[in-house]
Amino acid sequence: MAPTSSWIPNISPASDFSLANIPFGIVSTSPSSSPSAAIAIGDHVLDLKALFESENDLTPVYPGVDITSLKEAFSQPTLNAFAQLGRPVHRVVRTGIQDLLREDTPFSSILKDNEPLKQKALLPQRAVKMHLPMAIGDYTDFYAGYHHAYAVGVMFRGPENALQPNYMHLPVGYHGRASSIVVSGTPIHRPVGQILLDPKAEPKVPVTGPTRKLDIELELGCFIARGNRMGEAIDVKEAEEYIFGYVLLNDWSARDIQTWEYVPLGPFNGKNFASTISPWVVLADALEPFRAKGIENTTELQEYLKEGREEGVFDIRLEVDLTTAEGDTTTIGRTSSKHLLWSFPQMIAHHTLGGCPMRPGDLLGSGTISGPGGIGERGSLLEMNEAGKREVLLCGMDARTFLKDGDTVTLRGSCGTDGARVGFGACTGRIFSAAPRK
Amino acid sequence: MAPTSSWIPNISPASDFSLANIPFGIVSTSPSSSPSAAIAIGDHVLDLKALFESENDLTPVYPGVDITSLKEAFSQPTLNAFAQLGRPVHRVVRTGIQDLLREDTPFSSILKDNEPLKQKALLPQRAVKMHLPMAIGDYTDFYAGYHHAYAVGVMFRGPENALQPNYMHLPVGYHGRASSIVVSGTPIHRPVGQILLDPKAEPKVPVTGPTRKLDIELELGCFIARGNRMGEAIDVKEAEEYIFGYVLLNDWSARDIQTWEYVPLGPFNGKNFASTISPWVVLADALEPFRAKGIENTTELQEYLKEGREEGVFDIRLEVDLTTAEGDTTTIGRTSSKHLLWSFPQMIAHHTLGGCPMRPGDLLGSGTISGPGGIGERGSLLEMNEAGKREVLLCGMDARTFLKDGDTVTLRGSCGTDGARVGFGACTGRIFSAAPRK
Repeated sequence: MAPTSSWIPNISPASDFSLANIPFGIVSTSPSSSPSAAIAIGDHVLDLKALFESENDLTPVYPGVDITSLKEAFSQPTLNAFAQLGRPVHRVVRTGIQDLLREDTPFSSILKDNEPLKQKALLPQRAVKMHLPMAIGDYTDFYAGYHHAYAVGVMFRGPENALQPNYMHLPVGYHGRASSIVVSGTPIHRPVGQILLDPKAEPKVPVTGPTRKLDIELELGCFIARGNRMGEAIDVKEAEEYIFGYVLLNDWSARDIQTWEYVPLGPFNGKNFASTISPWVVLADALEPFRAKGIENTTELQEYLKEGREEGVFDIRLEVDLTTAEGDTTTIGRTSSKHLLWSFPQMIAHHTLGGCPMRPGDLLGSGTISGPGGIGERGSLLEMNEAGKREVLLCGMDARTFLKDGDTVTLRGSCGTDGARVGFGACTGRIFSAAPRK
Repeated sequence: MAPTSSWIPNISPASDFSLANIPFGIVSTSPSSSPSAAIAIGDHVLDLKALFESENDLTPVYPGVDITSLKEAFSQPTLNAFAQLGRPVHRVVRTGIQDLLREDTPFSSILKDNEPLKQKALLPQRAVKMHLPMAIGDYTDFYAGYHHAYAVGVMFRGPENALQPNYMHLPVGYHGRASSIVVSGTPIHRPVGQILLDPKAEPKVPVTGPTRKLDIELELGCFIARGNRMGEAIDVKEAEEYIFGYVLLNDWSARDIQTWEYVPLGPFNGKNFASTISPWVVLADALEPFRAKGIENTTELQEYLKEGREEGVFDIRLEVDLTTAEGDTTTIGRTSSKHLLWSFPQMIAHHTLGGCPMRPGDLLGSGTISGPGGIGERGSLLEMNEAGKREVLLCGMDARTFLKDGDTVTLRGSCGTDGARVGFGACTGRIFSAAPRK
C-alpha cells in the first residue's frame, strides 16, 4: 500500500502510528469514564466508542459488517469482543478507519468536517490513560529466539549441549502467569525471592531477599482472536486466522530466583512478578507487508509444523533503551523480530496439537529475541553481561550488570519507512525497590 | 460439631454430602436454564438462586450478612462472586444453610414446611447438570507430594539425586493451563503429541502420534477466595483467609510427550490437554475438623514459610478407581492428603513472595499425592507400574501399565465418620481415542 497521508494534524514522519498502522487499544478519556476502545493515529487517539455512538450512518464505511456488533464491542473495557469478530472483520474495520482518516477521505462528512464529533472523539494521546488491551485468559511464553536460547545454553551447559535435543523439533514453551501482565508504564517492584548466593557451597542453603539480578527479556507478543474447541488442534496453515495482533512484551526476569527454583518444573517466581506489554495491539494485517524469513531450520519437521511458506515471521526493528534515574538514556540492544526459529502459526499448531483450547485474548510470547551478532544485538542483560562477567556500558559514565532501582527500560519496535511506519509505541517500566512486607 | 441429622429424605450414612459438609457448586436445573449456585445435601441439591429469590426473609438465617449481595452472587454462573465475599461470610452462609436443613431447624417455615419452595429449590442431584464451579484465572500446580516426588526422582535420577536441592526449601511449582480445566464427567481425548520412541537412539528423532503413556495424577485442588495487590506478598499466617475451598483434581499426564518436551522449561503439552476437577467446592471451614500433621520437614525453613502450627494439612482419605470399558472397577490406589510436605498457606506465601497477584477463582494443585507405603498407595500409574516395568493388575483378569481408550478413572475423597462425612463426590473422566485432525 502506498503511504497516503491523513488530514489528522501534525503526524510526525517518524510516528509509529501512521495511516498504514491503525493499532487498537483501550483508553479512558477522563478519570470518571469507563475504559473503551480507541485507535492511535499520530499523536492522537480516535475514541471508537464515541465514533460509533454518533448519529452517523457508518454502514458505507464498514461494508458487510454488522455495525451493532461493532458498536457493542467498542464500548467494552477490553478488545476481546472485537477480537472474536474474526480477522475478516478486523480487516474491513481497519480499512474503514483508514478511509475516514485519509486526506482524500470519501467520508469527510462523518469525521473530517464534523467539528462536534472531532471535539469528542479525536483526542491527544497525552490526554488519555491506557489500559491493558485484552482480558488475558492464559499466557504462554515460548523460547523461539534461537540466538538467545543458544547463548544462554552455552553459559549454563557449554557449546556442545547448548540446545536441548528437542529444541529444533518443537517450539519449546511454558505456561506463564496471566495475572501479572501489566500495561506499559506500570511500576515494577523488584521481587523478593529465594536465592542461592553460593551455588558451590554444600549444603545448599538459600537466603530470602530482593533479587540481585533483575533482567529484561525483549519479546514479541501475539494475541489470539479465535478459540478452538478442546480436543481439536489448529492446523498450522489455518493458524493465521486465529491471530488478532501483536504487542511488544518485556518478560522481566529475576535470574538468581530463577536459577534456584527452575529445576525440574521450569521458571516460576523468577518470572511471575510482572510482564509488561505495549498498550496498542498492531493488527495482524498491518504487519503483513513486513513478512520475512525466520531462522532456517534444517531439521526435518513433523508434518503438523510444516507451514508451506518461507516468510513465517516479521522483520520488525526492535530496540531496548535503558534510562537511569538521572535521566540518561542508552540504547543497549538493537535487533529484529525475524530472528525466530518458529513462527506464531507454528507455536499455535504445537500448542493445540494435543487439543489444548485457545481462547480469545490468550497471549503467546515469542521468547527473548537476540540477533546473531555481538553484544549490541542481545535481548536480555544476561546475554549482554555474559552471565554477569562484564558490565554493560551506559552513557553518562554509568554501567550495569543487572537493573538498578530507578532504572527505566523501554522497548520499541517498528517496521516500514518514515511517513508510513507501523510500530508499537513504547513498552516501558520503571524499577522500584522491593515492596515492604505487610 | 456433633453430627446432627437433617430432614432431607434418604441421606445415606456413607454420603459425602452430610449436614457437616454443605459444599457449593454450579448447576443448571434444565437444558434452558442458565447455570447458578447450589449446595449438595445427600442425594439432593438445594438451588440457592431459587432459595434467595423466594419471598422469605432470610435475614435471621444469615446474621450480619448483606442478603442482596448473596442473592446476586448466587445467581451468577460461577462461584467467584461468592468466594470474593470472604471467609467470614462463607462461614455464616454455611452455618445458616445447616440451620435450614437440620431436623430441629429453627427456620422450618422457610424451607422444611414450605412445599412450593421445596418443589422448586430442592432437586435430586441426578436431575441437574454440574458445571465448572469457578472462572479460573490462573492455575498453578505444585509438587508438594513428597513420596511422589521422591519415587519419580528415583526412577529418573536414582536414589542419590532423587530430589533436587531446592525441594526441601521451597514449594516447587509451575504454571499450568487454566483453559483446559474441566468439570468431572467431561470426556478426555487421548492427546496427540511429539514422542521420542527410542530415547537412546542418535540422532534423537521424534514421531507425532497419540500418547502411549496416558496417566493420572491424584491431587487436591485449592480455590482462592481473595486476591492480593500486585507487589504485596501474602503472609503465611494470614493465608488461610485467602482460601475459598477445595476440590479433587486429576492432572491427566501424557508421560511420553512430557519426557521429550519438559527440559528446560517444564511440562507443557504433556499436561495442558485436560485437568479434571470434582464439581463441588468443599469450603475451607468444612475441612477444619480434619486437620493433620503433614510430612515433617527437618530443613530450617525461610521465615516466610514458617506457619507456626503443626497441623497445616488435612487427613482426607483418597481413592483412585479404574473402570474398564467392560464395566469392571478396581480401586488401584488409596492414600491420604496428609502426605504433603507443604501446606496450601505455605504454597500461597511462596507464590506471592515476589508480589505475584492472586485473583479470586485461581486454582492451586497440591501435586500428586502418594503414600509412604507400597504400590497400592500411589497417586499415579507411573509410580504403580514403576516407570512401565510392571503391570497394575485389575479385577476381571485385566491389567494396565497406562490408560486404555474406554477406561474411566474416578477419584474420591472424604473425611469423617458415617453420617457426618465431609467428602467431594466423584471426580471422573473417561478416555476417548484421539480426536481426528480437522
